[in-house]
Amino acid sequence: MSAPDPTLLSLNVATVRTQWSLEQAIEGCARHGIGWIAPWRDKLAECGLARAKALIKTHGLKVSSLCRGGMFPAADDAGRRAAIDDNKRAIDEAAELGAACLVLIAGGLPKGSKDIAGARAQVKDGIAALLEHARAARLPLAIEPLHPMYAADRACVNTLEHALDLCDALGAGLGVAVDVYHVWWDPDLAAGIERAGKRILGFHLCDWLVPTTDLLLDRGMMGDGVIDIPAIRRMVEAQFYAGPREVEIFSQNNWWKRDADEVMRTVKDRYASAT
Amino acid sequence: MSAPDPTLLSLNVATVRTQWSLEQAIEGCARHGIGWIAPWRDKLAECGLARAKALIKTHGLKVSSLCRGGMFPAADDAGRRAAIDDNKRAIDEAAELGAACLVLIAGGLPKGSKDIAGARAQVKDGIAALLEHARAARLPLAIEPLHPMYAADRACVNTLEHALDLCDALGAGLGVAVDVYHVWWDPDLAAGIERAGKRILGFHLCDWLVPTTDLLLDRGMMGDGVIDIPAIRRMVEAQFYAGPREVEIFSQNNWWKRDADEVMRTVKDRYASAT
Repeated sequence: MSAPDPTLLSLNVATVRTQWSLEQAIEGCARHGIGWIAPWRDKLAECGLARAKALIKTHGLKVSSLCRGGMFPAADDAGRRAAIDDNKRAIDEAAELGAACLVLIAGGLPKGSKDIAGARAQVKDGIAALLEHARAARLPLAIEPLHPMYAADRACVNTLEHALDLCDALGAGLGVAVDVYHVWWDPDLAAGIERAGKRILGFHLCDWLVPTTDLLLDRGMMGDGVIDIPAIRRMVEAQFYAGPREVEIFSQNNWWKRDADEVMRTVKDRYASAT
Repeated sequence: MSAPDPTLLSLNVATVRTQWSLEQAIEGCARHGIGWIAPWRDKLAECGLARAKALIKTHGLKVSSLCRGGMFPAADDAGRRAAIDDNKRAIDEAAELGAACLVLIAGGLPKGSKDIAGARAQVKDGIAALLEHARAARLPLAIEPLHPMYAADRACVNTLEHALDLCDALGAGLGVAVDVYHVWWDPDLAAGIERAGKRILGFHLCDWLVPTTDLLLDRGMMGDGVIDIPAIRRMVEAQFYAGPREVEIFSQNNWWKRDADEVMRTVKDRYASAT
């Protein structure tokens, strides 16, 4: 197995979200020799799309993904239409930045609902309603299954298998983002990655800490947890995935409290030694 | 769909673990007209097996399960043998109490390990090593898949499908416990319950709160969360499951802080109105 290719490392800006603006993250990537970046839309809006695009170009970076679209289920038609409209804007922004894909997070149960099958049907309908727009923009949509602990409030697509069923049903222009944090536990992971094949549009890295003290904001740096990341890298590379590897760490009590340049150095070191 | 049968309600003593000893829980069940109880082994040891058995008989209760066996993976052979020996003792205790089953929780990764496939193989070997003893005691073993958020540190069997694969591979004397908390998110839940069929040995109730503030100790009372419990009850009853329904709620900041008789009244009310 070859060493992790340093030219494929990407910084998801969520990793330094409390420390840096998007402009600072772009400059930070350039300073640390990280060639890819993945902005979130809130930071992109703060920076301004045109300015972000210019800064990314000036610093010679590439955009591994825009985070994020999705969040389809809603309590009423107006809510569902608003989500689709917002997703179309996200597609346009991602295309303008030349992003490799737009990450789609399904969304959870509408407020007050216990109908997860219904929410899943709304996700399917929502993605279907976006596909023509995405194809016209030549912008791949990457469904990212989230860990089942987010099924209620964040994403009701929780396995690679489910995400691929959506891809099969809806056709061209769709793929998946494989985040080790969300899928590492899945006994069918190897089969799912093989089934995904060329539809792998993104590969995201962090680690699962023991203990995990918060469902959302206690992700670990690669190497600090229990995920066999090299094993999962082998699986995605066996499917000829040769795209960027995005480091995305939500860590309210550790990495978000550290100096961002220290975080960047650690990301680079751990990418090389623990992925 | 018929109303929940009040004679099938069972109190898992973890629901009042901070308030009551096993003796108090037995008396509490009798006082509140709850006909089934599920002890944990730590409380059983405090009470003493013979005394617990006598108290349960005196109060006319039945034992829906003993919690718990399992925890098979270990870093070395001695650890794995110790787990099997302890499980044999748990089988003997459950048989002595006339429990309907012994609940098996797989166990997580051995300390320092990232080999989840290896841990899963150890679970299979561990259950295989128990089966003769369990069959001789005529004591069914119920594999309880736990939510994937426990894969690292508590149980590496995380889906009904995986639990049933183990049942298929290992044969008679094994079944599954279906806890709505652990399986509600699974897009293949209906198929899994149908596949389980007569192998459903237990049905456990609580609810998934939004937000959930702790991975282990923030379970909700039935009706306070997002799980469509009646829908899952329909699925298990369609497989002719007519056994007890165990209420098991770990709730460090709410139910464990309340008066235990209030908890018992709420369990009964919500069992009737929200399951």
